[in-house]
Amino acid sequence: MKLSCVRENLAKALSALGRVVTTSSTLPILGNVLLQTDQGRLKISATDLEMGVNYWVGAKIETQGKITIPARVFTDYVNNNTDENIELEVENQLIKLNSEHYSTKINGLSAEEFPIIPAIKNGVEVKLNVEMLKDAVSKVVFAAAIGETNPTLAGVLFKVEGNKLKVVATDGYRLAEKIVDLETPASDGFAVIVPTKTIQELYRLLGNVGGEVRLLVADNQILFGLEGMEIVSRLIEGNYPAYEGLMPQSYVTRVMVGTKELLSGAKMAAVFSRESQKIRLVVDKDKNRLVSMSKGQLGENVSNIGVEVEGVGGEITFNTRYLSDVLNVVGAMNVVLEMTDKLKPGLIKPVNDDNYRYIIMPVKD
Amino acid sequence: MKLSCVRENLAKALSALGRVVTTSSTLPILGNVLLQTDQGRLKISATDLEMGVNYWVGAKIETQGKITIPARVFTDYVNNNTDENIELEVENQLIKLNSEHYSTKINGLSAEEFPIIPAIKNGVEVKLNVEMLKDAVSKVVFAAAIGETNPTLAGVLFKVEGNKLKVVATDGYRLAEKIVDLETPASDGFAVIVPTKTIQELYRLLGNVGGEVRLLVADNQILFGLEGMEIVSRLIEGNYPAYEGLMPQSYVTRVMVGTKELLSGAKMAAVFSRESQKIRLVVDKDKNRLVSMSKGQLGENVSNIGVEVEGVGGEITFNTRYLSDVLNVVGAMNVVLEMTDKLKPGLIKPVNDDNYRYIIMPVKD
Repeated sequence: MKLSCVRENLAKALSALGRVVTTSSTLPILGNVLLQTDQGRLKISATDLEMGVNYWVGAKIETQGKITIPARVFTDYVNNNTDENIELEVENQLIKLNSEHYSTKINGLSAEEFPIIPAIKNGVEVKLNVEMLKDAVSKVVFAAAIGETNPTLAGVLFKVEGNKLKVVATDGYRLAEKIVDLETPASDGFAVIVPTKTIQELYRLLGNVGGEVRLLVADNQILFGLEGMEIVSRLIEGNYPAYEGLMPQSYVTRVMVGTKELLSGAKMAAVFSRESQKIRLVVDKDKNRLVSMSKGQLGENVSNIGVEVEGVGGEITFNTRYLSDVLNVVGAMNVVLEMTDKLKPGLIKPVNDDNYRYIIMPVKD
Repeated sequence: MKLSCVRENLAKALSALGRVVTTSSTLPILGNVLLQTDQGRLKISATDLEMGVNYWVGAKIETQGKITIPARVFTDYVNNNTDENIELEVENQLIKLNSEHYSTKINGLSAEEFPIIPAIKNGVEVKLNVEMLKDAVSKVVFAAAIGETNPTLAGVLFKVEGNKLKVVATDGYRLAEKIVDLETPASDGFAVIVPTKTIQELYRLLGNVGGEVRLLVADNQILFGLEGMEIVSRLIEGNYPAYEGLMPQSYVTRVMVGTKELLSGAKMAAVFSRESQKIRLVVDKDKNRLVSMSKGQLGENVSNIGVEVEGVGGEITFNTRYLSDVLNVVGAMNVVLEMTDKLKPGLIKPVNDDNYRYIIMPVKD
């Protein structure tokens, strides 16, 4: 195996793959990345056994081959190198790296020992704009459950019906749903649960990428395909809760409120209700005011927010973080808060947009 | 006590004081800041018993008084508040805070319980430009010893003789000295050791400040005085090592090298010599080249750096971090490396500047 490539391209690839690489004492090879020549390019792969990422880098290839190399030292080498091009040559698992100012040798491990990242060839395919996927993911992923008590909730639902993709997450206390309109309907519907970690890494990997992303679902695997990169992940088995029935269909009190103002109220409440993490919201219909209240050992706070009220006054108490989480990502100047009763779920959504809905279960005052 | 002040000024003060505040279960009041009216301003103070900081904020004072308030909740309150002005009123240790949108109460503690920050009135005084002090401090403080094996080395020496201020730190393995020319000679000389933590906080507090800083030394205390802020710290007792005699007076090999290039070599060496942390530098007089070498379990690296050589060739081995530390802060395009023997200290300084000198003890190859 012998090739050369632009240092900066290698640096980009290794930065993308870095967080998938894991240090495992039982399986040290997961700390390596797999390098292999692939149709005139260098393919670099990393996996943590749950998900795998393949990344292609342009290269001038002299002889074909494959090898694995410790990811951290290779990344540090590439990042600290100040030259433009790097030559790579493998001799008996010893990787020789040469550039204008640096001569380096790194001990590799055989490519045969590297876990196989499944290649998905056939399956149901959906295409959508990268920005739309990023937007959807950022608006729901924080609502997924942490931990393993209910495995299906520790993931994000991707549900395709006709030309709609629904992206949903819930931990049982709040639920976020984002509906994306597909330009081309999928060949078939599906509903799969993708592990939260995969979604978080996907979001990070999509960071600077534009264009289109391809979702391919088959055999308990999902593939997210981009130009020069693909992410393959196992799916979570099991049935996602039938959440649609839980969505409030009506309201008694409806408040239109500035996102920033309500977020300030929620953050201020978090300061004072550190122990209980409760924010009590009281809708004052007469004064067109939303009053948020919190108290704890250190003191207490009352915040007054000017709002528009529809219906009657009312009150509800939420977990402060569940409220601020949605306001941090909603991306709208104003949101609507709908509620029926202080014991029934409240609904938050952007004004004039039914494609994003967020439900919070109230807590006792 | 009743007053009002601009929220943003309070926020700045609390941000400055925040890191001096400590959470101590034996002395919980150290988690508070002391608020007191002081000649038409609000004086806010924090202390960790080793050092204290006083910060003055403009205020409209209605009634005089003093109180302490938990720093963290007060800071969070001020930072999350979105209004312009804050009114503060104390009633029986309950602090009532009011602004346009927020009504808040925080439980305080009596000012009598707050430790006294010593007020230094008389002593030897030195004045210098804030930028010069920051520059000097940033170029030496990293060389101070960590831990308590030799208490005098866990601080920074401030030595005034005539119109020179020498700022020095050493951990026994490397030593950094910066000489500052004073515009006005001090009334008297002094040599005091200031705890490293004080110096680190001082550097942070000087962050956005311009103008002049006043150093006042008396009674085992030092005061750094600025417009609207003063830092008072205890001094470390004991005699600082007579380091001047250790400074190399001559050299056999002298290399002029680009700071960035040598830093790249040092960082690259750190990647490969993770276990030994050694960088071997070989001066190739014939090729006008400095070759840096490193190796470890993961592999090995050779970096080639073009340099100007004076005297004969030679070699020396350093700890990688001791080398990169100085190159990170030296602030010159090119540095000079002088050495006499691979077992004798090497000297690094900016080209054409004897006011900054850094000595490194070599390690065995």
